[in-house]
Amino acid sequence: MDGLLVPRADEHLGEYVPPSAERLAWLSGFTGSAGLGLVLPDRAVLFTDGRYTVQAAQQTDPTLWQRAHITETPPHAWLAEHAPGLRIGYDPWLHTEAALARFAAVTLVPLAANPVDAIWHDRPAPPAAPAIAHPLAFAGRPAEEKRAEAAAALAAAKEDAAVLADPHAAAWLLNLRGGDLAHTPLCLAMAILHADGRVALFADPAKFGPEVRAHLGAAVAIAPRAALPDALDSLAGRTVRCDPDRTPAAILARLRAAGARVTANEDPTVLPRARKNAVEQQGARAAHRRDAAAMARFLAWFAAEAPKGGLTEMAAAERLRAFRAEAPEFRGESFPAIAGAGEHGAIVHYRATPDSDRPIRPGEPFLIDSGAQYPDGTTDITRTLWVEGAGDPPAELVERATRVLKGHLALAALRFPEGVAGPHLDAIARAPLWQAGLDYDHGTGHGVGSFLSVHEGPAAFSRAAKPVPLGEGMILSDEPGFYEAGRYGIRIENLLLVRREPGTARPFLCFETLTLVPYDRRLIAPGLLSPAERAQVDAYHARVRAEIGPLLDAAARAWLEAATAPL
Amino acid sequence: MDGLLVPRADEHLGEYVPPSAERLAWLSGFTGSAGLGLVLPDRAVLFTDGRYTVQAAQQTDPTLWQRAHITETPPHAWLAEHAPGLRIGYDPWLHTEAALARFAAVTLVPLAANPVDAIWHDRPAPPAAPAIAHPLAFAGRPAEEKRAEAAAALAAAKEDAAVLADPHAAAWLLNLRGGDLAHTPLCLAMAILHADGRVALFADPAKFGPEVRAHLGAAVAIAPRAALPDALDSLAGRTVRCDPDRTPAAILARLRAAGARVTANEDPTVLPRARKNAVEQQGARAAHRRDAAAMARFLAWFAAEAPKGGLTEMAAAERLRAFRAEAPEFRGESFPAIAGAGEHGAIVHYRATPDSDRPIRPGEPFLIDSGAQYPDGTTDITRTLWVEGAGDPPAELVERATRVLKGHLALAALRFPEGVAGPHLDAIARAPLWQAGLDYDHGTGHGVGSFLSVHEGPAAFSRAAKPVPLGEGMILSDEPGFYEAGRYGIRIENLLLVRREPGTARPFLCFETLTLVPYDRRLIAPGLLSPAERAQVDAYHARVRAEIGPLLDAAARAWLEAATAPL
Repeated sequence: MDGLLVPRADEHLGEYVPPSAERLAWLSGFTGSAGLGLVLPDRAVLFTDGRYTVQAAQQTDPTLWQRAHITETPPHAWLAEHAPGLRIGYDPWLHTEAALARFAAVTLVPLAANPVDAIWHDRPAPPAAPAIAHPLAFAGRPAEEKRAEAAAALAAAKEDAAVLADPHAAAWLLNLRGGDLAHTPLCLAMAILHADGRVALFADPAKFGPEVRAHLGAAVAIAPRAALPDALDSLAGRTVRCDPDRTPAAILARLRAAGARVTANEDPTVLPRARKNAVEQQGARAAHRRDAAAMARFLAWFAAEAPKGGLTEMAAAERLRAFRAEAPEFRGESFPAIAGAGEHGAIVHYRATPDSDRPIRPGEPFLIDSGAQYPDGTTDITRTLWVEGAGDPPAELVERATRVLKGHLALAALRFPEGVAGPHLDAIARAPLWQAGLDYDHGTGHGVGSFLSVHEGPAAFSRAAKPVPLGEGMILSDEPGFYEAGRYGIRIENLLLVRREPGTARPFLCFETLTLVPYDRRLIAPGLLSPAERAQVDAYHARVRAEIGPLLDAAARAWLEAATAPL
Repeated sequence: MDGLLVPRADEHLGEYVPPSAERLAWLSGFTGSAGLGLVLPDRAVLFTDGRYTVQAAQQTDPTLWQRAHITETPPHAWLAEHAPGLRIGYDPWLHTEAALARFAAVTLVPLAANPVDAIWHDRPAPPAAPAIAHPLAFAGRPAEEKRAEAAAALAAAKEDAAVLADPHAAAWLLNLRGGDLAHTPLCLAMAILHADGRVALFADPAKFGPEVRAHLGAAVAIAPRAALPDALDSLAGRTVRCDPDRTPAAILARLRAAGARVTANEDPTVLPRARKNAVEQQGARAAHRRDAAAMARFLAWFAAEAPKGGLTEMAAAERLRAFRAEAPEFRGESFPAIAGAGEHGAIVHYRATPDSDRPIRPGEPFLIDSGAQYPDGTTDITRTLWVEGAGDPPAELVERATRVLKGHLALAALRFPEGVAGPHLDAIARAPLWQAGLDYDHGTGHGVGSFLSVHEGPAAFSRAAKPVPLGEGMILSDEPGFYEAGRYGIRIENLLLVRREPGTARPFLCFETLTLVPYDRRLIAPGLLSPAERAQVDAYHARVRAEIGPLLDAAARAWLEAATAPL
């Protein structure tokens, strides 16, 4: 073997991994959320995307690691150019077959054990948080019914079972949550769903106390992860669905070796999980009202404190967290808050650290993107605020913030027929910026889970996403932005719930805005808005005042009254 | 063999086929432009799309043919449901491998000869129109340069040759045109392009006179079509590119049997053909001015004649053809004109025939969608006209026509960054209709060739199209519509040229409107337009007046002055 692939991934192939799977960080020092290391005899290469160029340079030793851009020169292309013909080892639990198939210029060798693990002596233990039941009052449907429905989908496709490596699948299917990852209330588990509705769940049995075992019921068998390979072998002769985007190559190889027939169909929980039921929708509304009250109290406090000077990004983010944490339902932030003052706002995935933290100065914009986990729903909101100082906000900033707002409003107000998908609507939010020759380098919005991941597929307002038709009950973010590197960043984000539009001849959909927090009026140029856009802002602010005002104390309510005055 | 597939296709797999390849029409009576017949021992099934449901019923004998919807129950699904396990024969020259791969429930048997041909005794001869040179003054680039560029693309992909079954490929590559099809100036020919730039052209050598042979030059060898199989055999051991969407299964089978290695890459002429060069762009402008002058003369004539009553759809279309034909550059219509009065306007692909033709009545709308072939460019334009009668046009019609216009204007005025593709912009043209719960059941626009097909891939403003990024020089139609079955149809269509937007920090594109013909002001409600939209219409009309007015006689110019007055 001439080399080794070290992706930032665990066997669940998700966005977040526990510390015990941070092999790339341990090996290279790079702690970003996406990347891949390629270790060769004479050199090592760290592939990251544009978000992490600076961070990768800061965190890795240049005498050991050279760096490459993961989309401009992906690892397979780099190898084809610089080192064709090598034998490269990989851990088949950490890659999909499609990702491996791109490596045409080298010979890939699956490894029975991960070589990093063999030398990682202070490797943290895998997470062992207790599994918890997700009650019917929040889940809306009994797990028994979900299992029956997903099993019927397998039966209809003439499949005997599905292997579900993505722990979100078991979470939805079994109304199961946990605490194995920061920010996402997952129990890290794989599952095999059988066409008769039985489920075998593979996770440390110690995580499952009597209460959650009773909740799961007799149709769900819990076995240690080590039992998975034998369970795959026992599917010999059967037809087994494996989602090609969500299944490690190791599982497919094991199934085929055992003599199972593998079908490449989507994880049957993906669409029903994305389309929240009526109870989940009501939960989302309640969670967003609760979250909006905390945001309003934070914004009122911020409006009073920030102009005094001295408040730092980290202190502001911590104060917001504390306001949220006053609610008994608060279960933590749904992601690390992005709190960027001035030029830090232009770093799309900025995270204030003790090294980068700086005071928020009067007379500059401040971008705060944050969210929370509550048992009834997951939130995600961004506001760009003007910190009162000597003068008015610069005209350029207001003009651009107004263009961002126009795009955000246009998407929120859109009606569209069934069949339309997120990639088809991304341009709606960008057009007001495009008309000025401006754009932003991220998608317009992502799907959001229900007390699950804040980034949930399959729907997204992104040209890079698969064109999955939007469906009733999906929740997506609407977050256009504009960024001037080194100067400022603007982003405005609400969550939208896809609903059926009443009274149209053909089936039309529309959005209900879940997020209920004022836009900063100082960054809106009313003259750049159409009469319809002004009416839309005023109607939204009136709704915020009516729904959130009663949840606030007198001081915050006074702030809200002013913040939601008609334009 | 238990059955036979009879697609409406020839071995070039294009949209149009010559009479000699109309096997489905001969066998079934159905003359629509898309469909497939399935012949079984006890029954036969004709599969068509929604456009042709009525026509298929009229043209086929119900005691012989049952009918099915080709997208709702495609032939492979129909067979899986009604007749699994059969052995079905097919002509491997008339299908792609991908299309055949869908037939999982039956055994497909490739046939050495087409059984329809064996019994089609009065089959027309294949077309034998002379091939003609497409001069540099229109093509803009010498064929030698194009061959070198396409050959370099093969060499870069480590391919030895490409088989080009689509005659548009040879047309672009060799600056070659012909007259083998109605409406599209193609010479029906297949080609093999070698990585050294040589081309073998397979078509009836009698089509090629001394002039066109001299134009093609020594690097292009002409051989009869019957020589193609041996030529494929001679690629044994070579790597040969075949576009999977544009190559009959017979070619791939022959190459593989001969021991060639087939790569599935795009026809290398597709993108350069779509991105018109500067000379082609200038040609398009000239063709559109010429075409607009004919349209203006037609519209002036129509405005005077139609209100008298008695003018029929066919007569109107013929008069328009005659106006166009007065230009010496006219080479025919680019498709059969769609001239639909009143309720006929709601039939998207309506074609007036002696049976359906009817008088255009005062006090109703009239939709005319037509185009022409000129050596410097291909045109395609739709206008919806109000025929003056006793009263004003109904408010509903005007409101809907204005919404269609708003979408048409929004797309034409859009600026967007490089990387954006047609499927991402389709919603821009629909949003004004969507806001009223309305929509239309066709794409917003298609690519257009340069003295080639009026429907040219790969770019299209359609959610069903592949997301091929729009590029400078592409020409696409912008044609939203609205249809009330049994009552009226509205469509407004201009052709747009993709251009580089000057003066933006990142690479932005925009559209230049090529079509220069007034919109019918009687079907515009100025109060429903924004100030910017009104200014856009007025600016367009001022441009039409300035560019087309000087090409008209006094009477037509007087009409144009009135038709282009500010809103």
